[in-house]
Amino acid sequence: MLFENGDRIVFTGDSTTDADRGRPVGEGLWAGTGTGYVRQIENILNVVYPDKLFWISNTGCGGNTSLDLRNRWQNDVMNLNPDWVSVMIGINDIWRRFDSPAIRSLHVYAAEYKQNLSEMMERTLPVVKGMVLLSPYYIESNREDSMRQATDEYVAICSEIAKKYNTVFVNVQQAFDEYLVYRHSSYVAWDRVHPGPVGSAIIAREFLKAVGMDRSYI
Amino acid sequence: MLFENGDRIVFTGDSTTDADRGRPVGEGLWAGTGTGYVRQIENILNVVYPDKLFWISNTGCGGNTSLDLRNRWQNDVMNLNPDWVSVMIGINDIWRRFDSPAIRSLHVYAAEYKQNLSEMMERTLPVVKGMVLLSPYYIESNREDSMRQATDEYVAICSEIAKKYNTVFVNVQQAFDEYLVYRHSSYVAWDRVHPGPVGSAIIAREFLKAVGMDRSYI
Amino acid sequence: MLFENGDRIVFTGDSTTDADRGRPVGEGLWAGTGTGYVRQIENILNVVYPDKLFWISNTGCGGNTSLDLRNRWQNDVMNLNPDWVSVMIGINDIWRRFDSPAIRSLHVYAAEYKQNLSEMMERTLPVVKGMVLLSPYYIESNREDSMRQATDEYVAICSEIAKKYNTVFVNVQQAFDEYLVYRHSSYVAWDRVHPGPVGSAIIAREFLKAVGMDRSYI
Amino acid sequence: MLFENGDRIVFTGDSTTDADRGRPVGEGLWAGTGTGYVRQIENILNVVYPDKLFWISNTGCGGNTSLDLRNRWQNDVMNLNPDWVSVMIGINDIWRRFDSPAIRSLHVYAAEYKQNLSEMMERTLPVVKGMVLLSPYYIESNREDSMRQATDEYVAICSEIAKKYNTVFVNVQQAFDEYLVYRHSSYVAWDRVHPGPVGSAIIAREFLKAVGMDRSYI
Amino acid sequence: MLFENGDRIVFTGDSTTDADRGRPVGEGLWAGTGTGYVRQIENILNVVYPDKLFWISNTGCGGNTSLDLRNRWQNDVMNLNPDWVSVMIGINDIWRRFDSPAIRSLHVYAAEYKQNLSEMMERTLPVVKGMVLLSPYYIESNREDSMRQATDEYVAICSEIAKKYNTVFVNVQQAFDEYLVYRHSSYVAWDRVHPGPVGSAIIAREFLKAVGMDRSYI
Amino acid sequence: MLFENGDRIVFTGDSTTDADRGRPVGEGLWAGTGTGYVRQIENILNVVYPDKLFWISNTGCGGNTSLDLRNRWQNDVMNLNPDWVSVMIGINDIWRRFDSPAIRSLHVYAAEYKQNLSEMMERTLPVVKGMVLLSPYYIESNREDSMRQATDEYVAICSEIAKKYNTVFVNVQQAFDEYLVYRHSSYVAWDRVHPGPVGSAIIAREFLKAVGMDRSYI
Amino acid sequence: MLFENGDRIVFTGDSTTDADRGRPVGEGLWAGTGTGYVRQIENILNVVYPDKLFWISNTGCGGNTSLDLRNRWQNDVMNLNPDWVSVMIGINDIWRRFDSPAIRSLHVYAAEYKQNLSEMMERTLPVVKGMVLLSPYYIESNREDSMRQATDEYVAICSEIAKKYNTVFVNVQQAFDEYLVYRHSSYVAWDRVHPGPVGSAIIAREFLKAVGMDRSYI
Amino acid sequence: MLFENGDRIVFTGDSTTDADRGRPVGEGLWAGTGTGYVRQIENILNVVYPDKLFWISNTGCGGNTSLDLRNRWQNDVMNLNPDWVSVMIGINDIWRRFDSPAIRSLHVYAAEYKQNLSEMMERTLPVVKGMVLLSPYYIESNREDSMRQATDEYVAICSEIAKKYNTVFVNVQQAFDEYLVYRHSSYVAWDRVHPGPVGSAIIAREFLKAVGMDRSYI
Repeated sequence: MLFENGDRIVFTGDSTTDADRGRPVGEGLWAGTGTGYVRQIENILNVVYPDKLFWISNTGCGGNTSLDLRNRWQNDVMNLNPDWVSVMIGINDIWRRFDSPAIRSLHVYAAEYKQNLSEMMERTLPVVKGMVLLSPYYIESNREDSMRQATDEYVAICSEIAKKYNTVFVNVQQAFDEYLVYRHSSYVAWDRVHPGPVGSAIIAREFLKAVGMDRSYI
Repeated sequence: MLFENGDRIVFTGDSTTDADRGRPVGEGLWAGTGTGYVRQIENILNVVYPDKLFWISNTGCGGNTSLDLRNRWQNDVMNLNPDWVSVMIGINDIWRRFDSPAIRSLHVYAAEYKQNLSEMMERTLPVVKGMVLLSPYYIESNREDSMRQATDEYVAICSEIAKKYNTVFVNVQQAFDEYLVYRHSSYVAWDRVHPGPVGSAIIAREFLKAVGMDRSYI
Repeated sequence: MLFENGDRIVFTGDSTTDADRGRPVGEGLWAGTGTGYVRQIENILNVVYPDKLFWISNTGCGGNTSLDLRNRWQNDVMNLNPDWVSVMIGINDIWRRFDSPAIRSLHVYAAEYKQNLSEMMERTLPVVKGMVLLSPYYIESNREDSMRQATDEYVAICSEIAKKYNTVFVNVQQAFDEYLVYRHSSYVAWDRVHPGPVGSAIIAREFLKAVGMDRSYI
Repeated sequence: MLFENGDRIVFTGDSTTDADRGRPVGEGLWAGTGTGYVRQIENILNVVYPDKLFWISNTGCGGNTSLDLRNRWQNDVMNLNPDWVSVMIGINDIWRRFDSPAIRSLHVYAAEYKQNLSEMMERTLPVVKGMVLLSPYYIESNREDSMRQATDEYVAICSEIAKKYNTVFVNVQQAFDEYLVYRHSSYVAWDRVHPGPVGSAIIAREFLKAVGMDRSYI
Repeated sequence: MLFENGDRIVFTGDSTTDADRGRPVGEGLWAGTGTGYVRQIENILNVVYPDKLFWISNTGCGGNTSLDLRNRWQNDVMNLNPDWVSVMIGINDIWRRFDSPAIRSLHVYAAEYKQNLSEMMERTLPVVKGMVLLSPYYIESNREDSMRQATDEYVAICSEIAKKYNTVFVNVQQAFDEYLVYRHSSYVAWDRVHPGPVGSAIIAREFLKAVGMDRSYI
Repeated sequence: MLFENGDRIVFTGDSTTDADRGRPVGEGLWAGTGTGYVRQIENILNVVYPDKLFWISNTGCGGNTSLDLRNRWQNDVMNLNPDWVSVMIGINDIWRRFDSPAIRSLHVYAAEYKQNLSEMMERTLPVVKGMVLLSPYYIESNREDSMRQATDEYVAICSEIAKKYNTVFVNVQQAFDEYLVYRHSSYVAWDRVHPGPVGSAIIAREFLKAVGMDRSYI
Repeated sequence: MLFENGDRIVFTGDSTTDADRGRPVGEGLWAGTGTGYVRQIENILNVVYPDKLFWISNTGCGGNTSLDLRNRWQNDVMNLNPDWVSVMIGINDIWRRFDSPAIRSLHVYAAEYKQNLSEMMERTLPVVKGMVLLSPYYIESNREDSMRQATDEYVAICSEIAKKYNTVFVNVQQAFDEYLVYRHSSYVAWDRVHPGPVGSAIIAREFLKAVGMDRSYI
Repeated sequence: MLFENGDRIVFTGDSTTDADRGRPVGEGLWAGTGTGYVRQIENILNVVYPDKLFWISNTGCGGNTSLDLRNRWQNDVMNLNPDWVSVMIGINDIWRRFDSPAIRSLHVYAAEYKQNLSEMMERTLPVVKGMVLLSPYYIESNREDSMRQATDEYVAICSEIAKKYNTVFVNVQQAFDEYLVYRHSSYVAWDRVHPGPVGSAIIAREFLKAVGMDRSYI
């Protein structure tokens, strides 16, 4: 597995990462890392690797676009001196174009998204062991849906950035697509964005596979 | 217009009708008829027909299926002695099959839905001036979506029942379909079911057209 | 219609405009533009013109006099770079003279009111497409009432200012006067100032007529 | 003065009497008799007659019409074995006709009002030392206002009932009329019905004069 | 009467004056001047002198000693440009010596109390029409009680200061002493310091007599 | 000591005993026996006798008079099958005569008090190992105070009842009298009835002495 | 795996099972099955078997002993017509003997515990496909600890009952013992009873192994 | 006894000392010194020495390690000009190593702990009459438990520091060890760290013995 005993892993992103985490940095007991996929990753790692310690921190912020995240990157990522950084961002860049089409100040378009991701990579990679880039996703199986199409474009940018910077890439969209063969999107998330606990378990599983987890939970 | 001065119009249904109405019967000042399409209909009628009085009552209940509504029909509709009854029900009959597929006790299938609507009609029509039947809807433009397909089936049942009992029918699904040509579903309702105020204004408009409103607001 | 696709329209004023809007700027989903006439205007425009986008922002503040509004004009109007500005202000300038006659620091007299309106006009008109000036109002049909008389004086000042600066003028007082022929003031607002939803629908209607809306809602 | 040492005086009526009194019977310390005119009467009597004890109880209920009061008369008046009963009721009988004109179930018309008052008198007078009847009032100086006209009709009924049953009558409407020569209605009550503390002090003063208070407070 | 039409009267002191007043300055509608003796004075003046306007402001602060009040005198009294200042302070200077005898930092002894009062007088008298000095009080009839003895000492200082600076003096202690002939201290205030509404009515009455009120309420 | 290993001791009375205890029976962890003298007795017994178990239950009820307690005696004392019963009651019988002199229904006079105590004794003594009767008290050193005089009368009744039925008697009034030589009543309780933690420690100490505690805490 | 497509599985027990579940029956969206091990089992099953539906219900109740559970067995288990029943009960039977040693009414001893479990088995097994019995546990590695010793006795009873009735047995105590080799008990649960999310993941894992889960999550 | 009439005694430390004390400095009535051992010490001293005054202040802060306490030492101890300082700190230095083993930033190791204690001593001793050092403790009788072993190490450091600086030392761990012979740890504190009221009474007793209390409470 990529993570070594003692590594500090900082997860950041938007509301899916946030999931009601503690402030200013989500870690440790109780509130800690929230109630989403970060918490589930922490659970599995600690059950399966009780002989190793992973310092897991969460600085996701509900509502963030890639621009918001870029603006707080120094404080909420760099200053924590992580060994690994995991980031999932972008759905709010897209969503506001569809649910608030007139409020232009809230939109972040693809070129800017790409630029924001690149900047995060370039500032961070030199001082960490590695990064994990999780794609945004829209839990909608209809690929003709206009917001799904936009999401696919941002997923492709993520994939491209991951390849260019040689980081771990987790295609969360693809994981949900495979699940939607069996269940309707409203089972996973009424709004197709904020997953319930089953959706978080899907994200956690993809993440753990991607970082090369080498012991099984079940 | 179908409504005459002094008529009592009882609106009932599920959460879209409820919209945080007053209890036990939603009417009058403040809490009154809630914050959804019923309130908007009440606003327009009172602005446009200040010379007439319409006694508008709301007994919608969040989460209701057609079975739940049937069970409280005597208390929440018949006992109010309405002149007109407007009912919009069915989406929860459908939704639970998709978001809670394992919890069978929550599902209401098409045959039972039809039977429930029929019973409401038959108990009510003999003692009122008329009824308005609003179709359920799913604010999803993709007709291949499985929940949309189920909704189309229930809309057809509604239409059939309306025809059979010769009542006013409002095809809310069709109104939203026309709107989705211009806007993404997430603009109208993140969960494709609970409309924001613009969605309520679309329902109110269709209702008012259907009851033959003969003066214009704007 | 005066508004063009993509225009940003900033509504400002006192509690009638505020109506529990979001902070710092009321716009977008949920809290957004509040629950008053601004919200109803936004509803109608979006139902009737789905093919156009209007960026609607609300910076009304409960309790504001024209002096309070003038003091925050730079931050809450100019800095938003609006295409159109709609302002309804003045009733608190008047009301405090009647409900708090001894608290002189709360009173804003006619000359100062006129001056405040003029300054808003002169600072704003050079950089926007246009302004809409809504008159204050007192929902009282008795023209001998002393507060109504004061209000009539302020309405006249509004009208004069609108003419002088060649802006759109909405005589809200007149709209309510016409309505009071049919309904008692307590139907519209127990305190004759803060309208319920029907009163908001009256204001919205006058506004939409005044800006030349060229499609009908109902 | 009419009240003697040791008398139990029960005040009842609607929200103006209630004024957030204690439940089930408002009396004694703290919550006790509320924050309205009953509390002010209690204050003055106890300051001026420290050598006498008056057991003051309040069973006013916000929103009550004369019908509501009649329905709870046995429990909230008769069962308390009062020496004196003071009642002020009627404004909600009237108000609902104007603020909720379509909701007919909320209206209590003049004939029924008179009947309700009469019944209260006839059930109570045989077993008490006396009753005080306070008129309803509408804090509106314009006698042409339709709700004011209705109130005048109910005041007249009160006066007539008081005369017929030979009870103390307090014309609260007249007291407010005299005050409105100097102050605008919005100083006394924004909604013209629920007085602030100054309005309560006006009612208390009229009451105390009417029961023949024979020592001065100031 | 001492107060003239248009005068601004600022009341200040500790919790008895504060009585849950509005912040930062207690005046005007609602919260305004609180629920204590200031509010009752405001009520009586406005009922009896509707033809005059008195601008009544309250800046009492719960828990204040004369030292605390002196420290905020500039902001909470001088900056309001009052015509008249009424001050009641001192009980907390005394009380902490008895209920918190070990916490020396909370005690204000007689010499310092006298000095604080003097400074308030000297800073204020040159710029106002006059001041009213209300004595502190302890609602305890036993003059041998040690806290009552201390209070008597502070009352004497008040009296002396009032004489020296030729201001209106209200001996609140004496008023309560006369009342305690008839009622037990626990009727007026369980803790002998914070009066209920009857106790406030006693203070208000003494104040109004002292300022030469020349019309009667009752 | 009177209590033996395994004894169930039920404390009951008014607010001083209650002290925010758990419901329906105050015992066990957390809320348990409240925050007053019962809790302090439980602490000391458990620190000093860790080798013994005493089942301590609290059924005190704030505001109770001896009449209220008598009415719930079966449910809140007898049904618990106690080995010992400790009761402190009476101050509310007295207090209401002084703080609510007009509300006669709240007063319990000496004869009735004695009768209530006697009945509790006679119903209970046959089925328990013994009872502890704590006197009511008024934390006022002035024996001329009228409420103190009444309290002395009730203390004497307590003492007489304890002697007649040969139960343990705790003269709490005397304990406070000795303490008031050193501290002012306001140190122990602002209202002279509800003690703070130091006052509770005085009651606990007297109780423990009276039941013959034979090991020292400090 | 033991569970088949469509099976209804009812989980019941004490606070560890409850975990803030919905009422009256915890199932479906949101509140649903709580935030403990039941929720984690539901997550894993739904991620791994999207092609099957398991109706998972939770009727655990915080604070329950085996006696409490037995008393509500008909309503909260039998009436739900489960296919499978999973029960974890007993720690409160034990804990009260140690944290509330004097409150005998709260203790449930081993013989009664065994009897309660037996009765649950005998009432249920005839009408279900099978039962899963999870042992109670105390997250304390010191086998000499007196509460741990008591727990071991109850675990043995569980094991014996499971064997006698031929049901699935999950030795949760053993799973925690293996984990405590690596981590201190305070990592899993400060109070050694209520596990955090990692502890819940340990229970979920043991449960899933015991029911023969035949696909892997990670 | 060490403390003399008039001494100010400042207690500081972590949550056990804090116990919901008042802010910024916990002293005086109500909130004051909290609900833990400081409050119990204050009670006993005031009952037993009513002729002396001890100014007791509490600046404990929940969650503090010795590092946190050192950082606020100037403000929360030195600036209060105490005569005596009592400090109990260290359990959070230890606990985080066991309940949050991966979050290294929360751990304070033995050498640093010793250094922090030494610095507190050296800054304080020159300006006070004396200090009382209470050991940390872990309410766990099993000396093989790893957190208990760590605690024993810190207790030894405390003892050593107390000896070196010649201050009063209270071995709280030993007091609890003696108590655990009779009661299970869960009786004193479910989490073995935060004592209930009985545990606080044990700490208070040890403290009072150590400072040479020369009168008995019981």
